[in-house]
Amino acid sequence: MGKGAKGSQFCVIGLGRFGSSLGKELVHLGHEVLGIDRNEELVDDMSGTLTHTACADSTDEEALRALGIRNFDCCIVAIGGDIQASIMTAILAKDAGVKQVVVKAVSELHGRVLEKLGADRVIYPERDMGIRVAHQLVSPNLLDYIELSSDYSVAELSVPRCLAGKTLADIDPRKRFGCSIVAVNKPQGIVIAPKAEQVLAERDIMVVIGTNEGIEDFENMVSER
Amino acid sequence: MGKGAKGSQFCVIGLGRFGSSLGKELVHLGHEVLGIDRNEELVDDMSGTLTHTACADSTDEEALRALGIRNFDCCIVAIGGDIQASIMTAILAKDAGVKQVVVKAVSELHGRVLEKLGADRVIYPERDMGIRVAHQLVSPNLLDYIELSSDYSVAELSVPRCLAGKTLADIDPRKRFGCSIVAVNKPQGIVIAPKAEQVLAERDIMVVIGTNEGIEDFENMVSER
Amino acid sequence: MGKGAKGSQFCVIGLGRFGSSLGKELVHLGHEVLGIDRNEELVDDMSGTLTHTACADSTDEEALRALGIRNFDCCIVAIGGDIQASIMTAILAKDAGVKQVVVKAVSELHGRVLEKLGADRVIYPERDMGIRVAHQLVSPNLLDYIELSSDYSVAELSVPRCLAGKTLADIDPRKRFGCSIVAVNKPQGIVIAPKAEQVLAERDIMVVIGTNEGIEDFENMVSER
Amino acid sequence: MGKGAKGSQFCVIGLGRFGSSLGKELVHLGHEVLGIDRNEELVDDMSGTLTHTACADSTDEEALRALGIRNFDCCIVAIGGDIQASIMTAILAKDAGVKQVVVKAVSELHGRVLEKLGADRVIYPERDMGIRVAHQLVSPNLLDYIELSSDYSVAELSVPRCLAGKTLADIDPRKRFGCSIVAVNKPQGIVIAPKAEQVLAERDIMVVIGTNEGIEDFENMVSER
Amino acid sequence: MGKGAKGSQFCVIGLGRFGSSLGKELVHLGHEVLGIDRNEELVDDMSGTLTHTACADSTDEEALRALGIRNFDCCIVAIGGDIQASIMTAILAKDAGVKQVVVKAVSELHGRVLEKLGADRVIYPERDMGIRVAHQLVSPNLLDYIELSSDYSVAELSVPRCLAGKTLADIDPRKRFGCSIVAVNKPQGIVIAPKAEQVLAERDIMVVIGTNEGIEDFENMVSER
Amino acid sequence: MGKGAKGSQFCVIGLGRFGSSLGKELVHLGHEVLGIDRNEELVDDMSGTLTHTACADSTDEEALRALGIRNFDCCIVAIGGDIQASIMTAILAKDAGVKQVVVKAVSELHGRVLEKLGADRVIYPERDMGIRVAHQLVSPNLLDYIELSSDYSVAELSVPRCLAGKTLADIDPRKRFGCSIVAVNKPQGIVIAPKAEQVLAERDIMVVIGTNEGIEDFENMVSER
Amino acid sequence: MGKGAKGSQFCVIGLGRFGSSLGKELVHLGHEVLGIDRNEELVDDMSGTLTHTACADSTDEEALRALGIRNFDCCIVAIGGDIQASIMTAILAKDAGVKQVVVKAVSELHGRVLEKLGADRVIYPERDMGIRVAHQLVSPNLLDYIELSSDYSVAELSVPRCLAGKTLADIDPRKRFGCSIVAVNKPQGIVIAPKAEQVLAERDIMVVIGTNEGIEDFENMVSER
Amino acid sequence: MGKGAKGSQFCVIGLGRFGSSLGKELVHLGHEVLGIDRNEELVDDMSGTLTHTACADSTDEEALRALGIRNFDCCIVAIGGDIQASIMTAILAKDAGVKQVVVKAVSELHGRVLEKLGADRVIYPERDMGIRVAHQLVSPNLLDYIELSSDYSVAELSVPRCLAGKTLADIDPRKRFGCSIVAVNKPQGIVIAPKAEQVLAERDIMVVIGTNEGIEDFENMVSER
Repeated sequence: MGKGAKGSQFCVIGLGRFGSSLGKELVHLGHEVLGIDRNEELVDDMSGTLTHTACADSTDEEALRALGIRNFDCCIVAIGGDIQASIMTAILAKDAGVKQVVVKAVSELHGRVLEKLGADRVIYPERDMGIRVAHQLVSPNLLDYIELSSDYSVAELSVPRCLAGKTLADIDPRKRFGCSIVAVNKPQGIVIAPKAEQVLAERDIMVVIGTNEGIEDFENMVSER
Repeated sequence: MGKGAKGSQFCVIGLGRFGSSLGKELVHLGHEVLGIDRNEELVDDMSGTLTHTACADSTDEEALRALGIRNFDCCIVAIGGDIQASIMTAILAKDAGVKQVVVKAVSELHGRVLEKLGADRVIYPERDMGIRVAHQLVSPNLLDYIELSSDYSVAELSVPRCLAGKTLADIDPRKRFGCSIVAVNKPQGIVIAPKAEQVLAERDIMVVIGTNEGIEDFENMVSER
Repeated sequence: MGKGAKGSQFCVIGLGRFGSSLGKELVHLGHEVLGIDRNEELVDDMSGTLTHTACADSTDEEALRALGIRNFDCCIVAIGGDIQASIMTAILAKDAGVKQVVVKAVSELHGRVLEKLGADRVIYPERDMGIRVAHQLVSPNLLDYIELSSDYSVAELSVPRCLAGKTLADIDPRKRFGCSIVAVNKPQGIVIAPKAEQVLAERDIMVVIGTNEGIEDFENMVSER
Repeated sequence: MGKGAKGSQFCVIGLGRFGSSLGKELVHLGHEVLGIDRNEELVDDMSGTLTHTACADSTDEEALRALGIRNFDCCIVAIGGDIQASIMTAILAKDAGVKQVVVKAVSELHGRVLEKLGADRVIYPERDMGIRVAHQLVSPNLLDYIELSSDYSVAELSVPRCLAGKTLADIDPRKRFGCSIVAVNKPQGIVIAPKAEQVLAERDIMVVIGTNEGIEDFENMVSER
Repeated sequence: MGKGAKGSQFCVIGLGRFGSSLGKELVHLGHEVLGIDRNEELVDDMSGTLTHTACADSTDEEALRALGIRNFDCCIVAIGGDIQASIMTAILAKDAGVKQVVVKAVSELHGRVLEKLGADRVIYPERDMGIRVAHQLVSPNLLDYIELSSDYSVAELSVPRCLAGKTLADIDPRKRFGCSIVAVNKPQGIVIAPKAEQVLAERDIMVVIGTNEGIEDFENMVSER
Repeated sequence: MGKGAKGSQFCVIGLGRFGSSLGKELVHLGHEVLGIDRNEELVDDMSGTLTHTACADSTDEEALRALGIRNFDCCIVAIGGDIQASIMTAILAKDAGVKQVVVKAVSELHGRVLEKLGADRVIYPERDMGIRVAHQLVSPNLLDYIELSSDYSVAELSVPRCLAGKTLADIDPRKRFGCSIVAVNKPQGIVIAPKAEQVLAERDIMVVIGTNEGIEDFENMVSER
Repeated sequence: MGKGAKGSQFCVIGLGRFGSSLGKELVHLGHEVLGIDRNEELVDDMSGTLTHTACADSTDEEALRALGIRNFDCCIVAIGGDIQASIMTAILAKDAGVKQVVVKAVSELHGRVLEKLGADRVIYPERDMGIRVAHQLVSPNLLDYIELSSDYSVAELSVPRCLAGKTLADIDPRKRFGCSIVAVNKPQGIVIAPKAEQVLAERDIMVVIGTNEGIEDFENMVSER
Repeated sequence: MGKGAKGSQFCVIGLGRFGSSLGKELVHLGHEVLGIDRNEELVDDMSGTLTHTACADSTDEEALRALGIRNFDCCIVAIGGDIQASIMTAILAKDAGVKQVVVKAVSELHGRVLEKLGADRVIYPERDMGIRVAHQLVSPNLLDYIELSSDYSVAELSVPRCLAGKTLADIDPRKRFGCSIVAVNKPQGIVIAPKAEQVLAERDIMVVIGTNEGIEDFENMVSER
């Protein structure tokens, strides 16, 4: 989804599981990616996948300069275990003049340091993924969701057997749960802004917008039948 | 979002960054969670957060039995570095009769083994998060998104300055990009199924449904202005 | 004994004491054997003995493919200490299409995983050898034995001094212990289905078939004299 | 099979996979077993299985004396990785006056040292098991075997489909392969010294005595059909 | 020299050679000092010397809070080898509200990070001492010095034999080197603002103020005779 | 300050933070410096800075001889962690005939050994720096100081706001504290032996000579206002 | 031999093979011995043998003082591997006022340091023993020897078969080799200053004094027959 | 002393302090010596000293064969820390047919194993040196000694001041201590079988033969004066 402006140049430092997946997807989206890691094996593994790779110590200012770090639009510091290296790399990237420096933090304290040092964005992938998976586990029909605000969300719900054959009017979630079905994804194609007489089939996927509470109640009603 | 049926019992094995975040969110959603780790320090850190915690070797069948593993509705094996322990724990949980065994995999091969062993769900949090962050990086206005199918997505886009003051009719994304604005989140409240004369303000958030390509074009148009 | 169809191709992965002995014997029996180990020293030790040897990481799918693993009739995974590598190698060999994958397990739990993963045969050499040696230790005249069923066995017993000069009719084990002497191995040659008047000499070896209990009683009678 | 004279006292030093299996089987056969290891965990694992266990350094003469080593009928030194400890323990057991000292060797050189030091028996479990498994692998119908001499063996062969319904006279292995079927194990019971008109069924098990070559040819004929 | 306002409270984190010497001197100057280190041995060594000591991990926010870190007037982070701990401790001390946070840096990059994080003062003891010792080594008569500016210094010079018996007027450094002898330290007492007829003796110590160049020339003249 | 006689040759053994800073400053002062370390990385880091560098084990008499150690005027042993190497190197340098051997000690006991071995000078950089920093911390206006004797010091004090606009006569430190202001460093230039009517401005720097007690009282008076 | 004045007090620091043998012999000779080692196991091993033992770090001045080191007549520093500890201990013992400090050196350089530090005697047990054993190996009849000077030795030679039955006059070593037989040790007793008519028997032992060369020639003559 | 028959070939395995000293002395005595060690550095250190050196694993039968071990007259196994290697090497040297295999033992148990394995001579250098040094320490005038039997010794005693100027007749040790002065080593030359009127000077060295007790009493008398 969304490939952004082509030709952006990314530098991913740290090619562990998160960094390599990130770099690979950026390439897949049509961007140039330089991957850097101290570990030669990880660099070799990605050398066929990323646009460029380099085995270097990212806390060595000279090394970063030689790699032309300042020319990148965005540098993602995805170093996992070595907090010192993460901090040192972030400040070097920032000082080199990289426009956007995104850094992965492994703890709240690590994140606090990074923000003080001027990181443009601090991300906590494992923490965020833990939260996301928790939601999916507790709601079997909840496939995915986006939090629009602290109150509202968009949710992707699969249609359970108990709702098969019913129309949106039968269910009327707006009335009962204060949430709207804004699209239904059916094998034959997606129906955007479906009509009240739209019939649901098992395994169809509904896109629902509403309050968190409303979606939750709707989801529970659906699950409990 | 979505708290599921209250009273479900979860067992999270492995309390690293992903596991502890997952367990914490499950508790936050109103469920009982037993957290297990071999590392006493990690167990101590979570002892005030999770419903129950235990320091145990999850590859020891006796230990798991003593902890009543078979009574849990869902067991999440979130062990990170030790693949052997992950595999052993998964088979023990499965054999103990846990209804749903979800296991974190660190590589494709690890995932393959887990599926052969009967894991109910194999997840790749770092890989998935890498992909998700990649999308957000390339599209500055893309806040989040859900892939409905390989073709269609729901996207949460912020309204850039260039669209401020325009109506949906002015923009007409359906005509130009084949995608629909199904909701607009404004400071004063969310507008579901907004009318064509709805005026957008900078920093409003649009929920857009459409083909990946259409949303991407829309997003690029928006970013490039 | 029994060299099987010539031309079978075996691949032995893990060249420790068990694996190297196995590989050597297979070559001795006239088969082609490829020996693989991660440890270069072990590979060198076997390079003059096995048909082919390779130093490779057997958990690397590419490496196994390059070695043509799928062309082997039988692959024995004799990896000892590294359970993870044993599991990974087994699944890779199986997925590569090897007809028969035999894997050495070091614990009951390890064995259970291997069976779930589709290993064609799981062996426990140290455990089995422990049992076999235990039997030989408790019965000084018992040279070797085969368990035909849980009740019946064939045993190879040496003739003690006390039976020297006696005929089978004198001993009459069928009557006294319900077991038959089906062969007597004498320095001058083997006597199959010996007659009742056959005379035994010290150090002759009797092949006895009967119930475990009967053979045991016979053996004890013989030992206690 | 064969439980030997009850009341014998065994001491097993080294409770790894081989030693613990050996000790367990000795107890199963009705003997008293003292298990000793330096590793407390291994000792704990066997404490419910063996008659007595002790955590001790077997190279410490005092420690062995305190455990009354000289009173044992047989002491099995099953130490695996630490050759020095194996040698030291063997000489201490021998010097303490143990009647029979059996020692596991891990290499030919190790074995040579043990023999010079007066070990009553040196065993090579992994090597022997490697040979045994090799034979079974190359001959699918060969279940087990005993080498009576370098020329003759007893073999346990399963009856393949191609021989089902045939009589021993039809097959006549004595004539064709110079080997005799001395027993047939059928679901309904074992038939010792079967007659020529005995009919075989698939999955019956034949006990065959003959030259290695003859049994091999018989086995091959059977397998190749 | 200079004991400052009594009753100030100092916290020294890191009790290596630099930190312990610093803490000891602060106590000697009449201040209360809390010494903290992760290493119990170092804490024990200083427990009789400093006012208070604690063995704690200074990167643990809770631990620092429990020690009342925010009540100290000045906190010196003298952690040597572990840059990550140095950074984490500095930010925690700063965030806790300590008025003055002084941090020892081990490299220019480390120092840069500390300054960005808001450290009130960054010191480089080994670097500074290296410079100071260098000056003393090259000028045998230079006992110590203070740089007043990049041009001017105060220097403590010992009187060499060649100047013994001479008066300041004989030497007249102001004229020849543009620098003034502002004090002469003699065994019988210090002479401040000495007169022109003051006679020097060998081993007297002169306090000289002047341009660096002038003092250097004076010092060289003195050394070369 | 003070560059000494040009052409002196220094050998710095141990290129850690102290040693490298020392070596760099010696070069800066116009001397030839050979830097030696066992650690290749440290040697490489200094190879562009020092006159000569060598990677060698300084406890190897042959190696030192090959580097011509005896030709150096002064050898500074700045080895930090490895006390044995420090001692061995010191004795070898001394025995080789180096005129001046200066050795860094890390403890009082280490220093005692070095003195017995004939080191010409033993220095304790971390200890001395700890003392120096302590003084500066407790006296905010004390910029630097030299101890002339155990009683007298020269101090560099900044003029606080409360003294701005006053003349030396107003302050009259000689009378009140028994110490003399021998120079005042002002933005417009240094005033040596200032007159009583000299007016002070904030941030001017005074060079004061007097008893430690007197300077301390003066400094306190100044700070407490 | 030679028990010295009873009641001397020895302190042996370092209870390895050399130190423990030395301490044991000193006790055997009737002296009080305190044995000290950092290694608790070694201390335990000697606790029944030496008069007193203590587990302590001999480089800790306080610890040595607490053990009353200064009261010992002689302190032997028999520390093997840790040269730094050997040096530190030697200087502490010397400074504590021990009358005689004997130190084992492991290299010529180590010995040089010890001598500079004032060790009363430096010994090289392994080196000396190597020399002694070398002599015994090359001369099968040479049982032991003492070097009186660089030219003269006393040697203990066994009488070979070829000399049996001969008198000293027959052999006349004084004339042929310039060396005298000053004693003959015979089973029936030692004969000091034997007469010329003294008859030698095989295995008698001669004590010979002479030049090294002469004894060597005599020994060779004896060996070569 | 005593160089033995030239042309003997020695092989020293293990070039630590004892082994290298032994090898060096053998070369010094005119023999060919091959030195072997696994440690390349030790081999390099001795390569200029011994006749031949080789870096090899002495527990590798092939390696020893390649070095022609069987051709040596005497092989000294001087391996220190690795008991297993010492044992393995000893048996290989013995089996290779070396005439005399001398092995250094580090403990009584080690020595027992070596003797059972057929080592021709087992030596305990550290233990023996400990004993020897003990004797010298307790008797300040005892320079060296040889034990002729358990009762008799030859001792080398220095003449103390109290005996200076006395004749042998004055002292008459034969009468008082039952021991004879068989030689006196004086600066001007050695006097064998000195007369009763021989005058002693301080620092002369007496060679005394007698009972241990007698020599001890003589030595004590001498020391106590």
